[in-house]
Amino acid sequence: MAKSLELEDVTQAGCCAPLSGPLLNEDESIELSKVFKALADPVRLRLLNMIAASDGGEMCVCDLTGAFEQTAATISHHLKVLREAGLITGDRRGTWVYYRVVPGALTRLSGLFTEPALT
Amino acid sequence: MAKSLELEDVTQAGCCAPLSGPLLNEDESIELSKVFKALADPVRLRLLNMIAASDGGEMCVCDLTGAFEQTAATISHHLKVLREAGLITGDRRGTWVYYRVVPGALTRLSGLFTEPALT
Repeated sequence: MAKSLELEDVTQAGCCAPLSGPLLNEDESIELSKVFKALADPVRLRLLNMIAASDGGEMCVCDLTGAFEQTAATISHHLKVLREAGLITGDRRGTWVYYRVVPGALTRLSGLFTEPALT
Repeated sequence: MAKSLELEDVTQAGCCAPLSGPLLNEDESIELSKVFKALADPVRLRLLNMIAASDGGEMCVCDLTGAFEQTAATISHHLKVLREAGLITGDRRGTWVYYRVVPGALTRLSGLFTEPALT
């Protein structure tokens, strides 16, 4: 379970501190780099994009798998990486798992890249 | 030169479109994944953080190198990766290169993670 809390771990102390703000310590930079490693793959980016943009904010793994040429096993692996980085959650209902974005996860990343207003 | 324009290439067509918005095509997701690959390293994150947070928005490679245990060659390599991803620029003046964040680069990433307002 602990592995799924990485993004939250990084940001809960100083939630959403921008990169233009306080300096990250070594541990924080290691945790944050894992989140970007999860995003550093085109298929994972498209999966996150599809889930984030879906009607109702939720998408069945059956619909995600059908959108790619990769095997269901490969798509499942990519979804696991996104889940372990704290970006999405999965909820099994019957045969299928339904994925949604972890509330606040994208907002925390957005805050990280906020630039100071020009004065 | 083309390699340093990746982030801009991805975002110029639909600048700052959030992941919760239009679906990325395959090429866009490949280009964007390269930016996150540049961010998927703790030393590179700390370098970008130091440059973004520096007084005057600029930092000498001499000061960046001194802050890490890695060799100057390793730090130079990491700075090159950040530069090629379109995140920082370097300006040689005399002996040293001075780095700053590419204007708008962080804002574009911030926009990518913007979540729709809850209604």
